[in-house]
Amino acid sequence: MASKAKSVKESYTVQTEIVLPNDTNTLGNLFGGKLMLWMDIVAAISAQRHSRRVVVTASVNNVSFNHPIKLGDVVTLEAKVSRAFNSSMEVFVDVSVEDHLTGKRKKCNEAIYTFVAVDQLGNAIHVPEALPETDEEVKRFEGALRRKQLSLILAGKMKPDEATELKALFFPEEK
Amino acid sequence: MASKAKSVKESYTVQTEIVLPNDTNTLGNLFGGKLMLWMDIVAAISAQRHSRRVVVTASVNNVSFNHPIKLGDVVTLEAKVSRAFNSSMEVFVDVSVEDHLTGKRKKCNEAIYTFVAVDQLGNAIHVPEALPETDEEVKRFEGALRRKQLSLILAGKMKPDEATELKALFFPEEK
Amino acid sequence: MASKAKSVKESYTVQTEIVLPNDTNTLGNLFGGKLMLWMDIVAAISAQRHSRRVVVTASVNNVSFNHPIKLGDVVTLEAKVSRAFNSSMEVFVDVSVEDHLTGKRKKCNEAIYTFVAVDQLGNAIHVPEALPETDEEVKRFEGALRRKQLSLILAGKMKPDEATELKALFFPEEK
Amino acid sequence: MASKAKSVKESYTVQTEIVLPNDTNTLGNLFGGKLMLWMDIVAAISAQRHSRRVVVTASVNNVSFNHPIKLGDVVTLEAKVSRAFNSSMEVFVDVSVEDHLTGKRKKCNEAIYTFVAVDQLGNAIHVPEALPETDEEVKRFEGALRRKQLSLILAGKMKPDEATELKALFFPEEK
Amino acid sequence: MASKAKSVKESYTVQTEIVLPNDTNTLGNLFGGKLMLWMDIVAAISAQRHSRRVVVTASVNNVSFNHPIKLGDVVTLEAKVSRAFNSSMEVFVDVSVEDHLTGKRKKCNEAIYTFVAVDQLGNAIHVPEALPETDEEVKRFEGALRRKQLSLILAGKMKPDEATELKALFFPEEK
Amino acid sequence: MASKAKSVKESYTVQTEIVLPNDTNTLGNLFGGKLMLWMDIVAAISAQRHSRRVVVTASVNNVSFNHPIKLGDVVTLEAKVSRAFNSSMEVFVDVSVEDHLTGKRKKCNEAIYTFVAVDQLGNAIHVPEALPETDEEVKRFEGALRRKQLSLILAGKMKPDEATELKALFFPEEK
Repeated sequence: MASKAKSVKESYTVQTEIVLPNDTNTLGNLFGGKLMLWMDIVAAISAQRHSRRVVVTASVNNVSFNHPIKLGDVVTLEAKVSRAFNSSMEVFVDVSVEDHLTGKRKKCNEAIYTFVAVDQLGNAIHVPEALPETDEEVKRFEGALRRKQLSLILAGKMKPDEATELKALFFPEEK
Repeated sequence: MASKAKSVKESYTVQTEIVLPNDTNTLGNLFGGKLMLWMDIVAAISAQRHSRRVVVTASVNNVSFNHPIKLGDVVTLEAKVSRAFNSSMEVFVDVSVEDHLTGKRKKCNEAIYTFVAVDQLGNAIHVPEALPETDEEVKRFEGALRRKQLSLILAGKMKPDEATELKALFFPEEK
Repeated sequence: MASKAKSVKESYTVQTEIVLPNDTNTLGNLFGGKLMLWMDIVAAISAQRHSRRVVVTASVNNVSFNHPIKLGDVVTLEAKVSRAFNSSMEVFVDVSVEDHLTGKRKKCNEAIYTFVAVDQLGNAIHVPEALPETDEEVKRFEGALRRKQLSLILAGKMKPDEATELKALFFPEEK
Repeated sequence: MASKAKSVKESYTVQTEIVLPNDTNTLGNLFGGKLMLWMDIVAAISAQRHSRRVVVTASVNNVSFNHPIKLGDVVTLEAKVSRAFNSSMEVFVDVSVEDHLTGKRKKCNEAIYTFVAVDQLGNAIHVPEALPETDEEVKRFEGALRRKQLSLILAGKMKPDEATELKALFFPEEK
Repeated sequence: MASKAKSVKESYTVQTEIVLPNDTNTLGNLFGGKLMLWMDIVAAISAQRHSRRVVVTASVNNVSFNHPIKLGDVVTLEAKVSRAFNSSMEVFVDVSVEDHLTGKRKKCNEAIYTFVAVDQLGNAIHVPEALPETDEEVKRFEGALRRKQLSLILAGKMKPDEATELKALFFPEEK
Repeated sequence: MASKAKSVKESYTVQTEIVLPNDTNTLGNLFGGKLMLWMDIVAAISAQRHSRRVVVTASVNNVSFNHPIKLGDVVTLEAKVSRAFNSSMEVFVDVSVEDHLTGKRKKCNEAIYTFVAVDQLGNAIHVPEALPETDEEVKRFEGALRRKQLSLILAGKMKPDEATELKALFFPEEK
């Protein structure tokens, strides 16, 4: 990997939105599809900042919707590259909503995106390593390998036996 | 579960779209966020057809982007409830793109959504069972339990030991 | 006409939408212009599927709005080529709305589009014949000639005397 | 009809738009559905200005697309009520495109809308008469009755024999 | 300046919009950003009509929001070039809202835009002079020089002493 | 003013966007009206964070467009309350664009918004003071009074003689 490793925080990207009538579903809450459109943009910018390349979405996982977000709420989306593999990058998006009166933020969604960096012909190209620093960054960096193995198994591209990281999840004593 | 079980095919929902300039990214391909917005709508309608209730998105997983979709391509999104649990429904969305000249369809994306049916106060309510009929419907119905266990483990709400379905994936001989 | 005739059902195209706040007028019903935008897309895909060519809208007629469609309603748009003439195709779009609780569909709109197939220079090119099969397809196929004559008369491009099909409407005994 | 008659020109409504990438189809021309969305808005405002009531779209006819409109073109939409019947109004929309260098306008589309004025419960209510003044206004006013009869016949709500205005089109000598 | 001077009224451009749910903020009023998007379009068309060139926005000033505009209101935007300098044009946009029942218009917003005409390489090019005719056009034409000087001073590109027009505002007796 | 003063940085709000085809004008650059829509959102959130109230746009000034922003560029919008007066807040929005390869940011736009905080009946209510800390914050805080006086003079609501802050701009020696 020729390019110089970068710290995770260099890919940090923030987006702040307010839920307008245009963004709501029939219950008056933020419409799920609209939130995913916002998450895709902020995650793509984060991957692009890490790689300084054009990036394309490869997969999305673990999008959870824990609390409804209401009309008028201020929504903050924060994205960071959690780990880089060859030409792909895993990006976490954390979504929080802000209490109108106190300004306190409550986390309400999370998603894990994978992007691939491509050249002008659309071929995958190498990206720099991502160096985690905080505890949470380290935890997500380590989990990324487990998630990659799991996705390879589910796609039939890896045998369960080879997924050493993932097996440890089920049989911690054998690790 | 009071309400009468329904066959999977009763929730079948189709959406056909053409990729307009408004839907593209800077490479002239369908923008990932826009596709996810379309998938969310078709999946929600499918879950609503199964439950005949208002539904809210609970999670999204396994969204894969295998082939870029180009400006002008005709995109078909097909959604079906794969399995119902109490008040939640797993919905598969299959996305295919149609060759302009031959009309041949090629599958290019897939996603797994989970919706929860709610009453007018937003409380979760029971939904009918979903009965699979075709081979693929049966396969997805069976996989749904494995995916549910996996998501509970990853969220720390189930111990790996209890995930009998999932363990079988790693140790088929012990099944 | 060189290309092989196709059955009407090969051009069948479905779109399923849910009415979001973004789609409503000031009465909280589906805004007419938005419905016409959806109809245009589904009709264009149908004509493209019949001709396997780029198509451009030539005219729209008989768009009727019989019942208001409400916020949250599930709307199904179905399009089929009713008849092909040289390089133009008449396409019917039927719009129905689905009862939330029972799933019963009620037809609420209809529109007749005409598209022209064009080559890369924008010149009109031949399209295959469309073969009707069901009773309704046959009825619409026959009506298409009458509608074409009427539109030529209204545009001053045909003399009423030559419109044999149309005259029969007023003087059935002379047919 | 209680309310005072109004001249046609009082309902005159103009909209000027520039074709942005967001509005184009895959050929780089103005997308038909987007034009129809713009026409619906300008026609509805015209009917609302005539009736000073909430109006709902009842039908659309004779939408012709004679010349492609290109990216960057300035488009002018002009709407006027051509005739009022009890609670419905026929509205003509004329669309012209402006030459970038000379400013010369060329007519490129036309459409005929029918709106119904409604009260707060959605019931149809009387609207003022529309008084034509110019030659074109008179011609369109007269044609409106013919178009109304034609639409009643096609919908099976009037017998051809009763359509005196329309028969005159086919047999002018008998008028 | 080679090109022939034009009267101000030749650049007159009108846009009529109705406030749909899609355009509102969380109070149910027209969202400020949406109004500015509409103003930008109508102002750009006006500058393009004056110059018969591609124009780019250079600055926006004096956008005032005096009265909230409600859902369902009919909004009229009128733009005219108030003065041309070399390659730039000052454009006034006046926004009024129409009473639903009486049709009376009330002015509710105003904005002053500056556009620059550019050639195909993006270089600024000369535009015709704009000749004011009505009293209001003359008043705005004269004010344009004062506003230009003020903006040059605020940007540090002119010394207050040289701003003869502007000084007269503060010391009318010295004029 | 009852509520406790807040530092300027507490109102800091960031938005990161990528220019998609949907956002461009006919030159392939970011369309001015779209940028103003984005600026309005980020500025409104900043004013809402300072006041913890619903805010409405009162005026916009000094929007400058210095460099065209291209399709695919990453745009960062940063907003901060520069000064609070009674019930109104002046907000600065700084827009920068990021070099694709080096990640270097270049400032390309600026705008000054004024918002008013309102209660549930739409009446203006007091907001906390804004305390500047950095040099730039202090400079903008001081300029805010000058800009307020200028806007009152231009609106005919203040006599030039009373605008002590503004006069100092023209006659620094008399300050």
